[in-house]
Amino acid sequence: MSNLFADLPPEGAAEEAFATLLTAPGARIERIVSRGQASPPGFWYDQDEDEWVAVLAGAATLRFEDTPAPLNLTAGDHVWIAAHRRHRVEATADPTIWLAVHLARG
Amino acid sequence: MSNLFADLPPEGAAEEAFATLLTAPGARIERIVSRGQASPPGFWYDQDEDEWVAVLAGAATLRFEDTPAPLNLTAGDHVWIAAHRRHRVEATADPTIWLAVHLARG
Repeated sequence: MSNLFADLPPEGAAEEAFATLLTAPGARIERIVSRGQASPPGFWYDQDEDEWVAVLAGAATLRFEDTPAPLNLTAGDHVWIAAHRRHRVEATADPTIWLAVHLARG
Repeated sequence: MSNLFADLPPEGAAEEAFATLLTAPGARIERIVSRGQASPPGFWYDQDEDEWVAVLAGAATLRFEDTPAPLNLTAGDHVWIAAHRRHRVEATADPTIWLAVHLARG
Protein backbone atom coordinates (compact mmCIF):
# COMPACT_ATOMS: atom_id res chain seq x y z
CA MET A 1 0.00 0.00 0.00
CA SER A 2 1.49 3.29 -1.05
CA ASN A 3 0.78 6.60 0.63
CA LEU A 4 -0.61 9.69 -1.07
CA PHE A 5 1.78 11.97 0.77
CA ALA A 6 4.92 9.82 0.38
CA ASP A 7 7.42 9.09 -2.36
CA LEU A 8 7.41 12.55 -3.82
CA PRO A 9 9.69 13.27 -6.74
CA PRO A 10 12.78 15.26 -5.74
CA GLU A 11 12.48 18.98 -5.16
CA GLY A 12 13.04 20.85 -8.38
CA ALA A 13 12.12 17.86 -10.55
CA ALA A 14 11.64 19.03 -14.10
CA GLU A 15 8.47 17.04 -14.73
CA GLU A 16 5.29 16.48 -12.83
CA ALA A 17 4.94 12.93 -11.51
CA PHE A 18 1.84 10.96 -12.47
CA ALA A 19 0.94 7.70 -10.71
CA THR A 20 -2.15 5.64 -11.42
CA LEU A 21 -3.50 4.31 -8.14
CA LEU A 22 -6.49 2.45 -9.49
CA THR A 23 -7.93 1.49 -12.84
CA ALA A 24 -11.47 0.17 -12.91
CA PRO A 25 -14.11 -0.01 -15.65
CA GLY A 26 -14.96 3.60 -16.38
CA ALA A 27 -12.74 5.09 -13.67
CA ARG A 28 -9.11 5.88 -13.04
CA ILE A 29 -7.66 7.36 -9.88
CA GLU A 30 -4.38 9.17 -10.19
CA ARG A 31 -1.98 11.02 -7.95
CA ILE A 32 -0.13 13.93 -9.49
CA VAL A 33 2.75 15.72 -7.82
CA SER A 34 3.65 19.16 -9.14
CA ARG A 35 6.91 20.84 -8.26
CA GLY A 36 6.07 24.37 -9.30
CA GLN A 37 5.16 23.45 -12.87
CA ALA A 38 2.50 25.22 -14.89
CA SER A 39 0.91 24.41 -18.22
CA PRO A 40 2.97 25.74 -21.12
CA PRO A 41 1.88 29.13 -22.50
CA GLY A 42 -1.18 28.74 -24.69
CA PHE A 43 -1.71 25.11 -23.72
CA TRP A 44 -5.20 23.96 -22.71
CA TYR A 45 -6.20 20.55 -21.44
CA ASP A 46 -9.15 19.23 -23.45
CA GLN A 47 -10.04 15.83 -22.03
CA ASP A 48 -12.42 13.15 -23.23
CA GLU A 49 -13.24 12.18 -19.65
CA ASP A 50 -14.87 13.98 -16.79
CA GLU A 51 -12.46 14.68 -13.95
CA TRP A 52 -12.89 15.34 -10.27
CA VAL A 53 -9.68 16.74 -8.87
CA ALA A 54 -8.61 17.78 -5.39
CA VAL A 55 -5.53 19.50 -4.07
CA LEU A 56 -4.43 17.42 -1.07
CA ALA A 57 -1.37 19.51 -0.24
CA GLY A 58 0.20 22.65 -1.62
CA ALA A 59 -1.66 25.14 -3.77
CA ALA A 60 -2.46 25.72 -7.40
CA THR A 61 -4.06 28.20 -9.74
CA LEU A 62 -6.43 26.69 -12.27
CA ARG A 63 -8.00 28.55 -15.14
CA PHE A 64 -10.92 27.63 -17.36
CA GLU A 65 -11.05 29.03 -20.85
CA ASP A 66 -14.72 29.92 -20.35
CA THR A 67 -14.15 31.81 -17.08
CA PRO A 68 -11.95 34.90 -16.84
CA ALA A 69 -11.10 34.66 -13.14
CA PRO A 70 -8.63 31.96 -12.20
CA LEU A 71 -9.42 29.56 -9.38
CA ASN A 72 -6.99 29.58 -6.48
CA LEU A 73 -6.94 26.15 -4.91
CA THR A 74 -5.44 25.36 -1.53
CA ALA A 75 -5.19 22.05 0.31
CA GLY A 76 -8.58 20.38 0.45
CA ASP A 77 -10.18 22.32 -2.39
CA HIS A 78 -11.76 20.21 -5.09
CA VAL A 79 -13.26 20.93 -8.44
CA TRP A 80 -15.27 19.18 -11.11
CA ILE A 81 -14.00 19.46 -14.67
CA ALA A 82 -16.49 18.28 -17.26
CA ALA A 83 -15.10 16.52 -20.32
CA HIS A 84 -13.86 18.98 -22.95
CA ARG A 85 -14.06 21.95 -20.63
CA ARG A 86 -10.76 23.50 -21.57
CA HIS A 87 -8.54 24.40 -18.66
CA ARG A 88 -4.92 24.97 -17.73
CA VAL A 89 -2.78 25.08 -14.64
CA GLU A 90 -1.41 28.60 -14.26
CA ALA A 91 0.81 27.89 -11.27
CA THR A 92 1.55 25.31 -8.57
CA ALA A 93 3.34 25.41 -5.25
CA ASP A 94 6.32 23.09 -4.76
CA PRO A 95 5.14 20.52 -3.89
CA THR A 96 1.48 20.28 -4.78
CA ILE A 97 -0.23 16.90 -4.43
CA TRP A 98 -3.32 16.36 -6.53
CA LEU A 99 -5.79 13.51 -6.45
CA ALA A 100 -7.68 13.08 -9.72
CA VAL A 101 -10.60 10.78 -10.42
CA HIS A 102 -11.13 10.38 -14.16
CA LEU A 103 -14.55 9.13 -15.14
CA ALA A 104 -15.50 7.85 -18.56
CA ARG A 105 -18.79 9.13 -19.85
CA GLY A 106 -21.41 6.41 -19.72
CA MET B 1 -16.63 24.87 -3.71
CA SER B 2 -16.30 23.13 -0.39
CA ASN B 3 -13.03 22.02 1.14
CA LEU B 4 -12.18 18.47 2.18
CA PHE B 5 -10.53 19.64 5.38
CA ALA B 6 -13.17 22.20 6.41
CA ASP B 7 -16.64 22.13 7.96
CA LEU B 8 -15.94 19.24 10.28
CA PRO B 9 -18.70 18.12 12.61
CA PRO B 10 -18.12 19.26 16.19
CA GLU B 11 -15.63 17.41 18.35
CA GLY B 12 -17.32 14.56 20.13
CA ALA B 13 -20.16 14.35 17.61
CA ALA B 14 -22.06 11.13 18.17
CA GLU B 15 -22.32 10.21 14.50
CA GLU B 16 -19.91 10.11 11.61
CA ALA B 17 -20.62 12.79 9.00
CA PHE B 18 -21.14 11.65 5.41
CA ALA B 19 -21.14 14.13 2.54
CA THR B 20 -21.53 13.22 -1.11
CA LEU B 21 -19.18 15.39 -3.16
CA LEU B 22 -20.01 14.01 -6.56
CA THR B 23 -22.48 11.63 -8.12
CA ALA B 24 -21.83 10.47 -11.66
CA PRO B 25 -22.96 7.44 -13.65
CA GLY B 26 -21.31 4.51 -11.92
CA ALA B 27 -19.37 6.57 -9.40
CA ARG B 28 -19.91 8.44 -6.17
CA ILE B 29 -17.29 10.41 -4.26
CA GLU B 30 -17.89 10.90 -0.58
CA ARG B 31 -16.18 12.56 2.34
CA ILE B 32 -16.58 10.90 5.70
CA VAL B 33 -15.51 12.47 8.98
CA SER B 34 -15.10 10.16 11.95
CA ARG B 35 -14.83 11.49 15.47
CA GLY B 36 -13.46 8.41 17.18
CA GLN B 37 -16.28 6.14 16.05
CA ALA B 38 -15.87 2.44 15.29
CA SER B 39 -18.20 -0.08 13.72
CA PRO B 40 -20.52 -1.65 16.28
CA PRO B 41 -19.37 -4.99 17.71
CA GLY B 42 -20.04 -7.78 15.24
CA PHE B 43 -20.97 -5.40 12.44
CA TRP B 44 -19.43 -5.90 9.01
CA TYR B 45 -19.84 -3.69 5.96
CA ASP B 46 -20.88 -5.78 2.96
CA GLN B 47 -21.20 -3.44 0.02
CA ASP B 48 -22.57 -3.96 -3.47
CA GLU B 49 -20.03 -1.51 -4.89
CA ASP B 50 -16.28 -1.50 -5.11
CA GLU B 51 -14.73 1.18 -2.97
CA TRP B 52 -11.40 2.99 -3.02
CA VAL B 53 -10.89 4.77 0.24
CA ALA B 54 -8.12 7.00 1.56
CA VAL B 55 -7.44 8.51 4.96
CA LEU B 56 -6.68 12.17 4.30
CA ALA B 57 -6.17 13.14 7.93
CA GLY B 58 -6.22 11.31 11.23
CA ALA B 59 -5.82 7.56 11.55
CA ALA B 60 -7.96 4.45 11.49
CA THR B 61 -7.82 0.72 11.99
CA LEU B 62 -9.59 -1.29 9.33
CA ARG B 63 -10.19 -4.99 9.49
CA PHE B 64 -11.21 -7.43 6.77
CA GLU B 65 -13.08 -10.57 7.75
CA ASP B 66 -10.78 -12.63 5.52
CA THR B 67 -7.56 -11.26 7.03
CA PRO B 68 -6.65 -11.69 10.68
CA ALA B 69 -4.30 -8.73 11.00
CA PRO B 70 -5.95 -5.32 11.06
CA LEU B 71 -4.73 -2.57 8.79
CA ASN B 72 -3.48 0.57 10.50
CA LEU B 73 -4.06 3.53 8.24
CA THR B 74 -2.52 6.93 8.70
CA ALA B 75 -2.92 10.09 6.66
CA GLY B 76 -2.34 9.35 2.99
CA ASP B 77 -2.87 5.61 3.16
CA HIS B 78 -5.40 4.23 0.72
CA VAL B 79 -6.98 0.87 0.22
CA TRP B 80 -9.13 -0.91 -2.32
CA ILE B 81 -12.18 -2.73 -1.01
CA ALA B 82 -13.78 -5.05 -3.52
CA ALA B 83 -17.56 -5.34 -3.45
CA HIS B 84 -18.76 -7.78 -0.80
CA ARG B 85 -15.39 -8.02 0.86
CA ARG B 86 -16.60 -7.78 4.42
CA HIS B 87 -14.81 -5.23 6.55
CA ARG B 88 -15.22 -3.10 9.62
CA VAL B 89 -13.66 -0.04 11.19
CA GLU B 90 -12.09 -1.04 14.48
CA ALA B 91 -11.05 2.44 15.55
CA THR B 92 -10.64 6.01 14.32
CA ALA B 93 -8.77 9.04 15.59
CA ASP B 94 -10.77 12.20 16.32
CA PRO B 95 -10.98 13.59 13.71
CA THR B 96 -10.34 11.25 10.82
CA ILE B 97 -11.15 12.48 7.32
CA TRP B 98 -11.81 9.82 4.70
CA LEU B 99 -12.26 10.16 0.99
CA ALA B 100 -14.22 7.30 -0.56
CA VAL B 101 -14.79 6.62 -4.24
CA HIS B 102 -17.61 4.14 -4.72
CA LEU B 103 -17.66 2.43 -8.10
CA ALA B 104 -20.55 0.45 -9.48
CA ARG B 105 -19.55 -2.81 -11.10
CA GLY B 106 -19.78 -2.60 -14.85
